Amino acid sequence: MKKIALFPGSFDPFTKGHADIVERGSKLFDEVVIGIGENIKKKRFFSVDLMLDKINSYYKNNTKIRAVKYTGLTAKFAQEVNANFLLRGLRNTTDFEFENSVAQANRHVFDQLETVFIITSPNLAFISSSVVRELYNYNQNINSFLPFDL
Amino acid sequence: MKKIALFPGSFDPFTKGHADIVERGSKLFDEVVIGIGENIKKKRFFSVDLMLDKINSYYKNNTKIRAVKYTGLTAKFAQEVNANFLLRGLRNTTDFEFENSVAQANRHVFDQLETVFIITSPNLAFISSSVVRELYNYNQNINSFLPFDL
Amino acid sequence: MKKIALFPGSFDPFTKGHADIVERGSKLFDEVVIGIGENIKKKRFFSVDLMLDKINSYYKNNTKIRAVKYTGLTAKFAQEVNANFLLRGLRNTTDFEFENSVAQANRHVFDQLETVFIITSPNLAFISSSVVRELYNYNQNINSFLPFDL
Amino acid sequence: MKKIALFPGSFDPFTKGHADIVERGSKLFDEVVIGIGENIKKKRFFSVDLMLDKINSYYKNNTKIRAVKYTGLTAKFAQEVNANFLLRGLRNTTDFEFENSVAQANRHVFDQLETVFIITSPNLAFISSSVVRELYNYNQNINSFLPFDL
Amino acid sequence: MKKIALFPGSFDPFTKGHADIVERGSKLFDEVVIGIGENIKKKRFFSVDLMLDKINSYYKNNTKIRAVKYTGLTAKFAQEVNANFLLRGLRNTTDFEFENSVAQANRHVFDQLETVFIITSPNLAFISSSVVRELYNYNQNINSFLPFDL
Amino acid sequence: MKKIALFPGSFDPFTKGHADIVERGSKLFDEVVIGIGENIKKKRFFSVDLMLDKINSYYKNNTKIRAVKYTGLTAKFAQEVNANFLLRGLRNTTDFEFENSVAQANRHVFDQLETVFIITSPNLAFISSSVVRELYNYNQNINSFLPFDL
Repeated sequence: MKKIALFPGSFDPFTKGHADIVERGSKLFDEVVIGIGENIKKKRFFSVDLMLDKINSYYKNNTKIRAVKYTGLTAKFAQEVNANFLLRGLRNTTDFEFENSVAQANRHVFDQLETVFIITSPNLAFISSSVVRELYNYNQNINSFLPFDL
Repeated sequence: MKKIALFPGSFDPFTKGHADIVERGSKLFDEVVIGIGENIKKKRFFSVDLMLDKINSYYKNNTKIRAVKYTGLTAKFAQEVNANFLLRGLRNTTDFEFENSVAQANRHVFDQLETVFIITSPNLAFISSSVVRELYNYNQNINSFLPFDL
Repeated sequence: MKKIALFPGSFDPFTKGHADIVERGSKLFDEVVIGIGENIKKKRFFSVDLMLDKINSYYKNNTKIRAVKYTGLTAKFAQEVNANFLLRGLRNTTDFEFENSVAQANRHVFDQLETVFIITSPNLAFISSSVVRELYNYNQNINSFLPFDL
Repeated sequence: MKKIALFPGSFDPFTKGHADIVERGSKLFDEVVIGIGENIKKKRFFSVDLMLDKINSYYKNNTKIRAVKYTGLTAKFAQEVNANFLLRGLRNTTDFEFENSVAQANRHVFDQLETVFIITSPNLAFISSSVVRELYNYNQNINSFLPFDL
Repeated sequence: MKKIALFPGSFDPFTKGHADIVERGSKLFDEVVIGIGENIKKKRFFSVDLMLDKINSYYKNNTKIRAVKYTGLTAKFAQEVNANFLLRGLRNTTDFEFENSVAQANRHVFDQLETVFIITSPNLAFISSSVVRELYNYNQNINSFLPFDL
Repeated sequence: MKKIALFPGSFDPFTKGHADIVERGSKLFDEVVIGIGENIKKKRFFSVDLMLDKINSYYKNNTKIRAVKYTGLTAKFAQEVNANFLLRGLRNTTDFEFENSVAQANRHVFDQLETVFIITSPNLAFISSSVVRELYNYNQNINSFLPFDL
């Protein structure tokens, strides 16, 4: 059976920290699907379609990585793309406590779904989408935080 | 003097994790009052009155446990129901840091008010009201997370 | 049924932080038994018998609190003194993670044993027996850390 | 070169916990600038100008401490007031994880900017502006949490 | 290239918590090598050879899992068994902080070595080898903590 | 008054992580004294005198930084070298919890002693003296972890 991992998130925007996890994680799996969650209630800074396009261009030569958008429950979407694994990055203990709860909830909804964690490279661990949005908001150049230009 | 504990929360909804703390805590106290805090500024998923009714039906044969709704400051409401203790569950270190601040603040407002903690049973610790609301929002059956059907 | 709590520890020495938990905890219970664990493999600074004597003198007018020494498993000793509760203090997240594991292990060995936690008063939370021993070792006066003189 | 620290925050309101850090920090620096960040998107309880006035009156005899309001990026404002240091208080591990990310981001934007931390005095560590706002909201007297009356 | 993971530890003894990680992890890899580290300076309760025998008997029908003993640096041993991954379990934030440092150190020594984490199932997270040793020391039956009888 | 900071530790060995804190901290102070604590009960890998020599050679052109050895209580030694500040690095939440207790204890012993913290640069945060000792023990080259060759 092919080993497929879903890497879910809102990716508003997709950062070098996310790319670090996807690329290191891709050595573990046959395929990594970057799932961009659409939530009509949350206002975004960078549209889902822009992000989808940027990520897919960035990984166009990597046959193991592709981005897809989705709505609804992450665990259900994992089933739709035949992912038996969720891939998640851990930056610090706050992440750990949050991800621990979410991983147990996901196993409860779909008991075959295993969440696999990689610790974000230390020099990238401070990068969060919210920090990047705030810098962008104040007209700072954010490209050094992203794997591609925006 | 009777030992009365207030177990305060928004209970939107009341979960098996909450029931675990109330029931284990009730062995410590003569009475446990489940206080459902009403906050008109926060939109709820499950109305206070529905929750009040469900909890009181669920515990109707347990003379030590009852639910009441309240507005205003928790420490003040504790006085109104003659509770000299607050009962709280701890799931993880994030809870601990938050509860630590709140417990000190409550002792400051009402210095006789002691907060007593029980650690949530590990198999229930991942259940949070917000996870349950999200699953409900996506049309999942949430009854396995609750002590009663909704 | 009488509510009896065991407050176990090595108490080498018993500090103001310990006294804070015992005294605040004694409002919850009919009786608090301070159990001084003897472990022949661990070298102590202050003998078990000295500590037993000091604690019992200190609480001689408090009929709810008494100290006893024990060897062997804490959960077993709780049964011997008819304690259905363990009382523990929490100072910080490191304590929380440790106590969480121990509380689950104790419930596994003796499933009626409930562990109840109180958060140490902030101005005493820095006091640990090991800090006190180190100061004592360097000939500092340690009486301001203890409820009695040594 | 003069050692100037910026102590940034929204200070809604400025508490005894903030004053503790500013005053203990002022022994380290030649000047501490309390920067009150204005963010038109966030509704405040206490206006920036009221807070500015209260803080400056409170420290009017301390030539090393003064308050200023600002908009925009904190790291940029630090440059404007010639601050080569940010001063921050740490209350607990949740603060630590958050401040760690922010400090790295600030060094990325302005690599000469060093963040210096002091741990909040334990008896004040429970005071947060949000707890104070909630008490105020419920008509409690909040002056015991503040260095001045409001 | 075959995906081989090393699951290193002292396994004194190997617990149900370890078995949980090995078995869930084995779905990710072609092979999981349980590496029992021998350290002549540390006195063991259960000999390396006993543990090796017990684990290999337990997994004798699982062609993906086998146990081996080793001395020396874990990262070097990973190379010897052609493991490009280390598999580790996380029980709580204390584990996370420790494993984070070790994972970075291992990448430093052998930059192709990726550490992959799975969170221990909550009902097993309290089981540590040290708790089991303590219970064993007090003549408790420890078989309910282990995947096999000892 | 001159601002003098003591940076205390056992430095067995002094690492790039220590150097990072000393050098970044030296911008804050007029003088940073690296205090190498001698504890005859603890067996060292690298002798105090070797370390003293190496550190002082390394900083021989930096007039603000020097190393000294000491025995006894850190807070007392701070007084001897006229240090009114302790300088400490924080790598993670485990460090934070430990340092928080120690800082309060030090203020208790010598109430003018303020502890100032800097967060270790993320790419160095995994380096601990104990990791370096373990690598050294296994005949690995450790020079990439140290500011000087050993």
